[in-house]
Amino acid sequence: MRHLLSTKDLSRDEAVAILDIAEDMADVATREVKKLPALRGKTVVNLFFEDSTRTRISFEAAAKRLSADVINFSAKGSSVSKGESLKDTAQTLAAIGADAVVIRHHASGAPNVLAQSGWIDAGIVNAGDGTHEHPTQALLDAFTIRRRLHGHGARGKALDGVRVTIVGDILHSRVARSNVWLLTTLGAEVHLVAPATLVPLGIDGWPVTIGYDLDQAIAAQPDVIMMLRIQSERMHAAFFPTAREYSRQWGLDDERLAKLPDGSLVMHPGPMNRGLEISANAADSPRSTVLEQVANGVSIRMAVLYLLLAGGVS
Amino acid sequence: MRHLLSTKDLSRDEAVAILDIAEDMADVATREVKKLPALRGKTVVNLFFEDSTRTRISFEAAAKRLSADVINFSAKGSSVSKGESLKDTAQTLAAIGADAVVIRHHASGAPNVLAQSGWIDAGIVNAGDGTHEHPTQALLDAFTIRRRLHGHGARGKALDGVRVTIVGDILHSRVARSNVWLLTTLGAEVHLVAPATLVPLGIDGWPVTIGYDLDQAIAAQPDVIMMLRIQSERMHAAFFPTAREYSRQWGLDDERLAKLPDGSLVMHPGPMNRGLEISANAADSPRSTVLEQVANGVSIRMAVLYLLLAGGVS
Amino acid sequence: MRHLLSTKDLSRDEAVAILDIAEDMADVATREVKKLPALRGKTVVNLFFEDSTRTRISFEAAAKRLSADVINFSAKGSSVSKGESLKDTAQTLAAIGADAVVIRHHASGAPNVLAQSGWIDAGIVNAGDGTHEHPTQALLDAFTIRRRLHGHGARGKALDGVRVTIVGDILHSRVARSNVWLLTTLGAEVHLVAPATLVPLGIDGWPVTIGYDLDQAIAAQPDVIMMLRIQSERMHAAFFPTAREYSRQWGLDDERLAKLPDGSLVMHPGPMNRGLEISANAADSPRSTVLEQVANGVSIRMAVLYLLLAGGVS
Repeated sequence: MRHLLSTKDLSRDEAVAILDIAEDMADVATREVKKLPALRGKTVVNLFFEDSTRTRISFEAAAKRLSADVINFSAKGSSVSKGESLKDTAQTLAAIGADAVVIRHHASGAPNVLAQSGWIDAGIVNAGDGTHEHPTQALLDAFTIRRRLHGHGARGKALDGVRVTIVGDILHSRVARSNVWLLTTLGAEVHLVAPATLVPLGIDGWPVTIGYDLDQAIAAQPDVIMMLRIQSERMHAAFFPTAREYSRQWGLDDERLAKLPDGSLVMHPGPMNRGLEISANAADSPRSTVLEQVANGVSIRMAVLYLLLAGGVS
Repeated sequence: MRHLLSTKDLSRDEAVAILDIAEDMADVATREVKKLPALRGKTVVNLFFEDSTRTRISFEAAAKRLSADVINFSAKGSSVSKGESLKDTAQTLAAIGADAVVIRHHASGAPNVLAQSGWIDAGIVNAGDGTHEHPTQALLDAFTIRRRLHGHGARGKALDGVRVTIVGDILHSRVARSNVWLLTTLGAEVHLVAPATLVPLGIDGWPVTIGYDLDQAIAAQPDVIMMLRIQSERMHAAFFPTAREYSRQWGLDDERLAKLPDGSLVMHPGPMNRGLEISANAADSPRSTVLEQVANGVSIRMAVLYLLLAGGVS
Repeated sequence: MRHLLSTKDLSRDEAVAILDIAEDMADVATREVKKLPALRGKTVVNLFFEDSTRTRISFEAAAKRLSADVINFSAKGSSVSKGESLKDTAQTLAAIGADAVVIRHHASGAPNVLAQSGWIDAGIVNAGDGTHEHPTQALLDAFTIRRRLHGHGARGKALDGVRVTIVGDILHSRVARSNVWLLTTLGAEVHLVAPATLVPLGIDGWPVTIGYDLDQAIAAQPDVIMMLRIQSERMHAAFFPTAREYSRQWGLDDERLAKLPDGSLVMHPGPMNRGLEISANAADSPRSTVLEQVANGVSIRMAVLYLLLAGGVS
């Protein structure tokens, strides 16, 4: 694998292979084994144009656990902005010998521009670009679902027939997009639930079903319900419901939690707004996979960096 | 030792054991030996909710000298604030596999909350919490006193009968609190000198004597005088003396320096306001231990990280 | 070599020796070899009082490729400012065991103060101080010229007779100053071109010729033309030409590019203002050495850190 830019590009075989390698990494990710020497002498640059401490430290931990050197480059506050200077930044990172660049950018498509530009030869990992994609998040979500449904150590398996409901601001969510492509590629059936004003225009082309009523979606007894994070800075926009309205209609409260089927999973990419899109009880219930998702994030990011820098999965 | 949250919790034996291990670490801390492999494969997270470059780099140097991986997490500017989100932050750090979390927080008790919460299994080191404690500062102070009075390599010894005078804004000082508990546990006699408005209410329960007159305290010929740093942002408060008044009445000026007994020590946790709470001559005199304190800080932090992560001192 | 404070201090033999060692480092810098163990156990502190992500990561990559530990210390936002507190900062870094301090400072001469103060025993590397010097930039420029003119692997050679024209805001440029001293020491002939208001007062003592007309300078057919970066925040000053005026009179546009002699080099320290001091075609032409300069920067910084910390070139 040369780059990881989106889950839309991944074939089913590639996606399953990444999950399988993440299984191999899990003992190191969860510290039962200390460290692997696989990427000794490789340099991973975290190039963050948006703050995201959680994602940055997950990649940093993953890289260090594989013995790579890590250089953090926060573009905020530096002279870097966008357009042509992305070129100069990329060429600088190439010239200092970056082997992989993990990029988070406010502009959709920035990681693709980097990968296709010829400015830099390093492997590019998309760590979230605008409202486009966040592929490692979707991979860790798929990994989490597979581990819960098929057990740790499941290899070769996909998610055929698993019914996943994703709830929230689909319009602005790169997490939702990456999950839609990946989960359907892996055979899952994806249903989206959102306020009508927060459904993207082009959604008719997506391989999903759409609804507006969370209670109806829960009555359909999904295997997995994934609650998206509400960006509170958007709640003042005219097209957005108020927090109270949102919570009442699209929040996973205790009453809705109780109606979920046995064995179903409650997922959230974090950080959670407890009491808004998810109740504290839902967040902390045995169904919740929130902490497993974070831990699995390190396994997935180890797998991705390993594939990009040590080869494999063409 | 599971955590280091306060010096109030430490028994005399535990405190002496930490000082003894710091002696073992001193050659590495002062770079006579390059590096120890003791914590290879361990991950130390510096979780700083308040800026403190000096303390952060001291812990970072200590951890790296023991071959641990270090991840810096500055909560400032991130979405992290307090209360429930401390829980989410802690769980995130647990999930990415932190073995120790060094926390500095503006809220007194935050490290205790972390340690007792069950949110995270890592060893917690309090690097300063509100006006509560700053235990590694007190340990490095005790270590510095012991080395000056009993020589390098002193092992097993405590500070019985050593007379220590601490001068300044006791009310807001976590350094003073940690020193009061630790030094008295080690057998020292502690005397506090402060402006009357800057003495804490509950001080009657402390194992110390109190005075308001620095000249009187110096006339009593202490073995150690420890000047606290003045937080200049507090000097505008109504209960605070003006800088001029403070310096005149509670500053260690050259005249007072000359009256200190032979062999006595002048200490300061740094960074100093030269000319305010301490004169340049006092800061740079042979009695001053200011630089030894910084160097000893690395030894103490190596000892603490070692005890938490490699075991010992139950 | 004890410190690297300026290129004015370097003898011809010392300068050539640094370039030769950079040749030895180049395979590691460009990642053909992964990593050298030369500085294992050494600690390099990046002490940056001004933001400069590009320079910081170049030094960080250089240090890590030699297996040193790196601690980043951004003075911005910390309690550090200047004067006496530079002393306290230096003593703190000494006490935590820094072996080398890479310092960038807004005040000309700050690195010299550090090196001569006795506050710290570490090797000091000037990474840019005010309008004074930026010696590693000049060294990487000289290295780039030597590699282009004499081939990779050239050893022992200087730049005798090479004709270099430096164009731009000489008044404020530490890059220009460091290049003037170094290139002339290496035997090059340096010609400066600048708006009359941006020529320093003391320039009569410099070993250079001066002109105000770029077309004339190009007609003289230099071997190397080095375009300085325009600091756009200066363009509002009364003594500064407008951007339009500057670009028309002192910018390297396509027409001027076409008039440069065969085999001549176009240099720029980066980051470039494309369309202002240099056209996109000039920046990306085969004559341009901009990317080689960045890559060579890692080789030079490895050589400098190696010389300071592992000895050599007295």
